[in-house]
Amino acid sequence: MRISSNVVKSNIEEEIYKKLDVKKLASTSNIIRVVDLGCATGPNTFMTIQNLLESMKHKYQIQCPNTPTKIPEFHVFFNDQLSNDFNTLFTTLPKDIQYFAAGVPGSFHGRLFPESSLHFAYTSYAIHFLSKSPQELQQKNSPTWNKGRVHYTSACKEVVDAYAAQFGKDVRDFLDARAIELVPGGMLVMVMQGIPNGMHHSDTVNGMMYDYMGSILMEIAKEGMFDESKVDSFNLPYYGPNPEEMTKLVETNGRFSIERMELTNPAPWLKSIRQIIPEWTVHVRASMEGTFNRQFGNEVTHEMFQRLIKQLTQNIEILETKLWDMTQLFVVLKRKE
Amino acid sequence: MRISSNVVKSNIEEEIYKKLDVKKLASTSNIIRVVDLGCATGPNTFMTIQNLLESMKHKYQIQCPNTPTKIPEFHVFFNDQLSNDFNTLFTTLPKDIQYFAAGVPGSFHGRLFPESSLHFAYTSYAIHFLSKSPQELQQKNSPTWNKGRVHYTSACKEVVDAYAAQFGKDVRDFLDARAIELVPGGMLVMVMQGIPNGMHHSDTVNGMMYDYMGSILMEIAKEGMFDESKVDSFNLPYYGPNPEEMTKLVETNGRFSIERMELTNPAPWLKSIRQIIPEWTVHVRASMEGTFNRQFGNEVTHEMFQRLIKQLTQNIEILETKLWDMTQLFVVLKRKE
Repeated sequence: MRISSNVVKSNIEEEIYKKLDVKKLASTSNIIRVVDLGCATGPNTFMTIQNLLESMKHKYQIQCPNTPTKIPEFHVFFNDQLSNDFNTLFTTLPKDIQYFAAGVPGSFHGRLFPESSLHFAYTSYAIHFLSKSPQELQQKNSPTWNKGRVHYTSACKEVVDAYAAQFGKDVRDFLDARAIELVPGGMLVMVMQGIPNGMHHSDTVNGMMYDYMGSILMEIAKEGMFDESKVDSFNLPYYGPNPEEMTKLVETNGRFSIERMELTNPAPWLKSIRQIIPEWTVHVRASMEGTFNRQFGNEVTHEMFQRLIKQLTQNIEILETKLWDMTQLFVVLKRKE
Repeated sequence: MRISSNVVKSNIEEEIYKKLDVKKLASTSNIIRVVDLGCATGPNTFMTIQNLLESMKHKYQIQCPNTPTKIPEFHVFFNDQLSNDFNTLFTTLPKDIQYFAAGVPGSFHGRLFPESSLHFAYTSYAIHFLSKSPQELQQKNSPTWNKGRVHYTSACKEVVDAYAAQFGKDVRDFLDARAIELVPGGMLVMVMQGIPNGMHHSDTVNGMMYDYMGSILMEIAKEGMFDESKVDSFNLPYYGPNPEEMTKLVETNGRFSIERMELTNPAPWLKSIRQIIPEWTVHVRASMEGTFNRQFGNEVTHEMFQRLIKQLTQNIEILETKLWDMTQLFVVLKRKE
């Protein structure tokens, strides 16, 4: 799921104006290379790239007021997993783009580009997806066995730790690769699900929803539609970190400076949780349905989402006490010189 | 249609060893950027790229015997039209590649890359495809009207000239774009259909085949399966230039030196035209069937190819007098310093 937000857009613009030395980055070859990591099939990626490029051009013109004709050329890379539909991505590329486009298939947990070849990397609603669901969550009789749940919300500390460990490994791999690929002074912007420091996952709207998903599936299993061991062996591969965890991961890598790290509202245009439910469940279903279908089949998944909407609506008063607006983590890093 | 050939492979190796200053090209960033223009969906493109990269690495090691660990990194771009199946291309990429891969959708008659960002461009069996079939071939009562034929083999001079003019425009566009994209000293290798200077197209095996295609289609039309105006309005968008024409086009562009230009055998492993027919017609059908299907429908196209094999076999003695082995044009250019 990728939610575009004007807040994120203006935050990125601000960081580019204040901290990105576009003139210097373009000085070697007059080319600025940009990547969207985990771009899916658009069209959000095209709007985001368009905004990024406009900000960089503007910054360049501010830095070089006397050479307005020599604006750098932009080479833009759209990355996603090998299974992404690049044909759709390419055919929906706007016709009037002012940059050179390329598609890059492969996992961003590894290297995708030559050393020091990128100037700006962006990733939105992609790195909170784990590269795999932690195996220890399926170990019966172990404290990490995540029985009867599909996520970690009301699980014990061991389960949350297993998720956090996998997220940590993935982000370390991600940052290691980007630290090599980005030129010194290059910028890395990351937008993902997040949670305030010290807050328990059950205190967020998302967390409650995951809990409901698990309990509804257990309820359907008990009605005999499938065996409940299917719930035990299923763990959604998402993890929303808090700023403290993210800071530690960046510091462990050591090759980036943290320019900005803050929690923001993933959907600031929505005024209340009551308003959110219809639109939000459509988003959630669109982004998660495939994953549930593969484990539980279409019939069970459909039934689960039907009951989920009902349960969320019935529990609207409880949901209204849960955190929604600070569950998006916005991070801006710069590759140290 | 792309026919790989060991002769072409060893010719390219030779040119890289003799004339490509890999050390100098890699000196700015330690990155060598390579593109296959018109790559289709593989697997030939992967083998070709592998060979190119091995030759370049080898040349680098010869040039820099004391720094064998600092071999340049390769960024390889696979280009083809927007309608190409990039999903298949990406999923069939070998797992053990030693380079970074990207797909570039779009016409190579225009710009695809930033200025001075490529070091080596390769194109095989792609630039003899015209960007469009010349419109004047459909002008009734004009000397350029190509009535009753699907190509230019036994057409009048005006028809051949219309084809040549379109090819000339396409190649000028192609070279203009590559001259900007390639760094000075960068190499451009082109493999395409060709014909010796001064030879008439009806003296080649390919030319005869196009003639047969036209006459068979007219025959089927006369039998009442479709209206013969469909043949009049159909003109295969291929053009095989001779070295003289190609030389002029490169000289008109003016920014490349011609390092090598020669006619070679497109299938040196085949000993005689008798041997060629079965394999060749399979190739031809695979590469052209779609084009014919769109104009004439599947039934007519199937019938045409059935009759074509028969006609080629019946006329084997005539075919044996026609040129086959010098119908591939191999060109190596270097971007002037």
